[in-house]
Amino acid sequence: MTNRRRFGLACAALLTSSLALAQGGQPLYKDPAQPVEKRVADLLARMTLEEKLGQMTQVAVSKLMSDGWGLGPLRGELLERYLVQRGIGSVLSGGGMGPVPNTPRAWAEMTNALQRAAVEKGRLGIPLLYGVDAVHGHNNVVGATLYPHNLGLAATWNPALVEQVARRVGQELRATGTLWNFAPVADLGRDPRWGRFYETFGEDPLLAGSLVAATVRGLQAGRVAATLKHFTGYGQPLGGTDRSPAFLAPRTLQEVWLPPFRAGLEAGALTVMANSGSLNGVPVHASRYLLTDVLRGQMGFKGVVISDWNDIDKLVGDHKAAAGFAEAVALSVNAGVDVYMVPMEVERYLQTLKELVEAGRIPRARVDEAAGRVLRLKFELGLFERPYAEVAEAEKVVEAQRPLAKQAALESVTLLENAASTLPLTNVRTLLVTGPAATDKTMQMGGWSIDWQGKEGAKAPGATVLEGLQKGAPQGVKVAYADPKDARALAAAVRASDAVVVALGEKPYAENEGNNLTGELPAEQYKLLRDLEAMGKPVVLVLLAGRPLAFPADAWLVPEAILMAYLPGSEAGSALADVLFGRHNPSGRLPFTWPKLFGQVPFTYDRYPDIYPKAEPLYPFGYGLSYTDFTYRLQAARATATAVEVDVEVRNTGKRAGSDVVQLYTRFPPLGLLAPRERLVAFAKVNLEPGQTRTLKLTAPLDRFALVPGDVFSLELPRVLPGRYVLRVGEQTVGVEVR
Amino acid sequence: MTNRRRFGLACAALLTSSLALAQGGQPLYKDPAQPVEKRVADLLARMTLEEKLGQMTQVAVSKLMSDGWGLGPLRGELLERYLVQRGIGSVLSGGGMGPVPNTPRAWAEMTNALQRAAVEKGRLGIPLLYGVDAVHGHNNVVGATLYPHNLGLAATWNPALVEQVARRVGQELRATGTLWNFAPVADLGRDPRWGRFYETFGEDPLLAGSLVAATVRGLQAGRVAATLKHFTGYGQPLGGTDRSPAFLAPRTLQEVWLPPFRAGLEAGALTVMANSGSLNGVPVHASRYLLTDVLRGQMGFKGVVISDWNDIDKLVGDHKAAAGFAEAVALSVNAGVDVYMVPMEVERYLQTLKELVEAGRIPRARVDEAAGRVLRLKFELGLFERPYAEVAEAEKVVEAQRPLAKQAALESVTLLENAASTLPLTNVRTLLVTGPAATDKTMQMGGWSIDWQGKEGAKAPGATVLEGLQKGAPQGVKVAYADPKDARALAAAVRASDAVVVALGEKPYAENEGNNLTGELPAEQYKLLRDLEAMGKPVVLVLLAGRPLAFPADAWLVPEAILMAYLPGSEAGSALADVLFGRHNPSGRLPFTWPKLFGQVPFTYDRYPDIYPKAEPLYPFGYGLSYTDFTYRLQAARATATAVEVDVEVRNTGKRAGSDVVQLYTRFPPLGLLAPRERLVAFAKVNLEPGQTRTLKLTAPLDRFALVPGDVFSLELPRVLPGRYVLRVGEQTVGVEVR
Repeated sequence: MTNRRRFGLACAALLTSSLALAQGGQPLYKDPAQPVEKRVADLLARMTLEEKLGQMTQVAVSKLMSDGWGLGPLRGELLERYLVQRGIGSVLSGGGMGPVPNTPRAWAEMTNALQRAAVEKGRLGIPLLYGVDAVHGHNNVVGATLYPHNLGLAATWNPALVEQVARRVGQELRATGTLWNFAPVADLGRDPRWGRFYETFGEDPLLAGSLVAATVRGLQAGRVAATLKHFTGYGQPLGGTDRSPAFLAPRTLQEVWLPPFRAGLEAGALTVMANSGSLNGVPVHASRYLLTDVLRGQMGFKGVVISDWNDIDKLVGDHKAAAGFAEAVALSVNAGVDVYMVPMEVERYLQTLKELVEAGRIPRARVDEAAGRVLRLKFELGLFERPYAEVAEAEKVVEAQRPLAKQAALESVTLLENAASTLPLTNVRTLLVTGPAATDKTMQMGGWSIDWQGKEGAKAPGATVLEGLQKGAPQGVKVAYADPKDARALAAAVRASDAVVVALGEKPYAENEGNNLTGELPAEQYKLLRDLEAMGKPVVLVLLAGRPLAFPADAWLVPEAILMAYLPGSEAGSALADVLFGRHNPSGRLPFTWPKLFGQVPFTYDRYPDIYPKAEPLYPFGYGLSYTDFTYRLQAARATATAVEVDVEVRNTGKRAGSDVVQLYTRFPPLGLLAPRERLVAFAKVNLEPGQTRTLKLTAPLDRFALVPGDVFSLELPRVLPGRYVLRVGEQTVGVEVR
Repeated sequence: MTNRRRFGLACAALLTSSLALAQGGQPLYKDPAQPVEKRVADLLARMTLEEKLGQMTQVAVSKLMSDGWGLGPLRGELLERYLVQRGIGSVLSGGGMGPVPNTPRAWAEMTNALQRAAVEKGRLGIPLLYGVDAVHGHNNVVGATLYPHNLGLAATWNPALVEQVARRVGQELRATGTLWNFAPVADLGRDPRWGRFYETFGEDPLLAGSLVAATVRGLQAGRVAATLKHFTGYGQPLGGTDRSPAFLAPRTLQEVWLPPFRAGLEAGALTVMANSGSLNGVPVHASRYLLTDVLRGQMGFKGVVISDWNDIDKLVGDHKAAAGFAEAVALSVNAGVDVYMVPMEVERYLQTLKELVEAGRIPRARVDEAAGRVLRLKFELGLFERPYAEVAEAEKVVEAQRPLAKQAALESVTLLENAASTLPLTNVRTLLVTGPAATDKTMQMGGWSIDWQGKEGAKAPGATVLEGLQKGAPQGVKVAYADPKDARALAAAVRASDAVVVALGEKPYAENEGNNLTGELPAEQYKLLRDLEAMGKPVVLVLLAGRPLAFPADAWLVPEAILMAYLPGSEAGSALADVLFGRHNPSGRLPFTWPKLFGQVPFTYDRYPDIYPKAEPLYPFGYGLSYTDFTYRLQAARATATAVEVDVEVRNTGKRAGSDVVQLYTRFPPLGLLAPRERLVAFAKVNLEPGQTRTLKLTAPLDRFALVPGDVFSLELPRVLPGRYVLRVGEQTVGVEVR
């Protein structure tokens, strides 16, 4: 032992001996009546350097099962080594990691076993945090209902519904002792080539921000920590491939990428995950500007910043920015990473951290700050008071929440084409269902379903699309199926049917494996569509996909009707049955611009004006048809000190009840610099009976009118530049003076 | 007349009366013995505000023919109105504009007539400047030889040759009284979707910068002003479409986009044209940061900044950044535009300028600065002493410079594939030539040939590819032709031949009309290639194109040999004959990365490292085969105060003489931020006999090792960060310590 270490330990002992005791003689930090800040300070003061570093470290649960990647029972000596001796403060399941078998009960028992080691055997009894990526339900646990992925949720334009879903997921997480959820994604989906496009709430900062905030509120209602990820600029990698370098202007960062994070922070998000990639040539895990100056200085974040998976290591071998691991750790921790999701080489991390602190390359104050944030998080979640899951409750809580999942799927479905009112299917007696997505459950679940890439997604609850349509068909309607690979049987079945539903889509994928540079489906799916189109029966195309898809000119014979279902999860089939057979009038609206061809991307509705007219997109942002029609009357607008308000009269002029998403956009006056062609500033969803009229008061927060003034690299913050703005709803416009 | 105007005129008169006279009683500014600065000051002091504003104004020549867009004889009253009364200081031919008929003699007579009006009738006898886009020869004049477009010149990697070409073009321009050339393009070609890709010297700042500098030296050797365009960031519009908004990190601007401009400035470029597009949301024509702080402050430029075509107007209607024309003019002139290429509404511009000056919205000092720069340019070009072209010489000078054009075409041709040494064609007795580019001269000329879009390019001198091959075939080789549209005749001709040369490529285009979002040729060209491949004879594919082309997987049966000829101009056929029949050993090297599919772009060799392995390009930057083989031995490298030097032994191990382009790349040490995977730091072209060895001393300027240090939006200038750099030539690497 070096003298320095001896001295350190002696100091820690001294400090411990002089610490305050709360009432009843227990240490102050254990007293829930004390303010959190005092509890953190008290506990920090009792901790050794090593214990603090443990709180900054996150280990994969498999490490506690096999000391490696293998899954199985937890091993006592590994709990002792990593949780008790090393004091590691948090554990995670990577996608697909969990107990074997991976039931809710087993999951709760697993987290309790981990917690027992930390609480009962740890010197100071600090509970640990268990983290997962529960991005559309408690998706690592077999038996948990899977909700639509975020892209589909975004198509609902319904923050209240998204909050309900998140609250439910939070309850399921809490019930299994899983109090840290690495969700929601607050990145935007602005490049559909990207393999994580479906994990986003689409391309618009206001829509995405509203849903990020809703998710944070929902999750944290159950005292589960939400994580805004991936801070920031992750969603527009150059060339569209996951984790490729991104390049952003300061204006774009401020006006586009930060607002959804700001919305999540204002909703109280307790943690933030750093972007694995780089921005403007700086790996975000090494950017003090982003992780500290912007996130904490400008945006006021007080919580925990966690790295993404193994991302300090990646500064060495992948970004090639750091000469070795020690340099990488110093860069990253000093930049602002509080917790490293190691997830495997935890002892190397602890040792390196310690050497850097002892060498003065990481200040001790930085360690106190980072460890203190983790402790504060644990106090805020009530972990010290309630560290254990109630095993008996876990299975009751993690059960099929089918009505909510179905409602989410229903509201997401977006009607893109409906020639001659093909839908709803009213005069159909025999409906043929075909296509690979009709019978392959993994295609409706997408990635992050049971396992990371979603290959095991069929194990999740729920019927296939075919089963759902069969079960949901009205009396007197026969739903037939034909294997799309059997051309002869298919042709016969088409002849015997009145209409065809063909379900096409993407096989599940996650992250880099899901990049798609052309946006095309496999050629046989286009061929199937062409063949069906040629047979003369009405064709309804149902798409199950995590992105807009490209339709090569020669493959694209527009079918009579097209439904975009995104990745709807467990209730895909029942929701599609309600839409197809007219029990639900579709109200989904695209949360992204659907390009004609992927050569156009990045291609968002809020791009700057084009000097030369560009090809229009195939479907614009916010687009979606209904079985009824709506008209608008826009009334005079007024600007207050904080918002622009406008009344919009919405009328259902058709013959069916239905919901509409009223979208208010602004156009900008000339300001000496470019402004977006339009920007969404408010939206509201309204349900109207046939003939019914309602007047909605839309309130657009003033910050949606803000632009960053100044020249090319201006670092000014966005502000509202006075002038006459033009508001638009549908075809209606009205001017408003804003100062 | 307002009092203010009266006062202004009185002052001008007063100043004039008190001005210095040079020896012999003539005004000082007319004395060539005086220093230019004194002549400028003297002349400026004699000028009225209106006369100064005239110097800041450029008019299209058609305005002096028809007071509009119509071409025809110059009209005396229009010369009087615009050149004499309004004192407009410069005139331009847009693409395709010129006298009718557009001969060298008529061109010289036209510029002389304009000059006479300005010099003989103007109050102060200030000569005017005539500007054109002579981007690959004097390409507006019928009869002028067309050289390869810049992209092909870049493939020669031969600055001395490019300088020769530019010197020749400068002589032709001078001989026709055209002393301002809006060339060279100093933008980089980093997105092949872009319609101006072929106008660039490719993707690399060092290669492009060397050729920009060579062009500037060559043009200005004949006292013709070169124009570096388009300052800056023009070459990577979002989505690849011309003039779409661009977004750049400060690092990328400094390390990638500015160096070719800096190279051109160091070579003495007299003028710079502003980028029509926007950078980071600021129209460059309104960016004081770029046009003044960076271009003049950081880069030390003293010459004239000219707008691009009509680009102050575009601030209003296209960028929607200015509320009206007056705001646009104030923004742009105050940002740093000295001369507005109006080109039509010149009186409105003059009037607006004047009102802005009188209202104090444009400082008078700014007017003196801008007009003074134009006058300085005219003095520097010797225009005051020699305003007229010698008409009798014009036709002698503007004549077919065929050997130089052929040499440029020869050195550009790049051999991409050569299975089983198909090339050179030695055992061929009957060669079939086919494909649309074999007989369509416009396809070898490209855009900016006689007219803007190159539709009239067949009027330029030179044989077709077919004619060139027929003329250049060795004795005993028959060159047959078959129409690619006549399938039966084609099949018969293939059967009767020993090998097939198929010339495919792009129809000519310029600017926005040339965007290609997929990089694909028309489908019938791929079909032709597939059909020929299926017939079993060796196929040599010759590509005449301004960009890398995409080959859809199902179209891409790799032919036995592929030659990329770029847009070779007048001598396409003769050069290709020499290459195909082995009289010239190809030495062209790609000046860009050739992607496998356009979903990969932007995709340059100097991108940052990939976290996930990306698909490799089809052909890398710098790639090109030869009929012989070269090996390298890299010797120890040493760093001096200004450069890194290394000796490379190059050996021709094959059986033919040939030229190689030795390319020296550096890899960067870990520096805490991302660095390019590699960066070209030096290159040299060397010709070797079979078996011959030469040792080249390559000198890489230290600034090629510089990176911008600091965080995401760091505005620091690039500097060399000490460390161990790894140099590479071919497969050989050697380390060097740089401090």
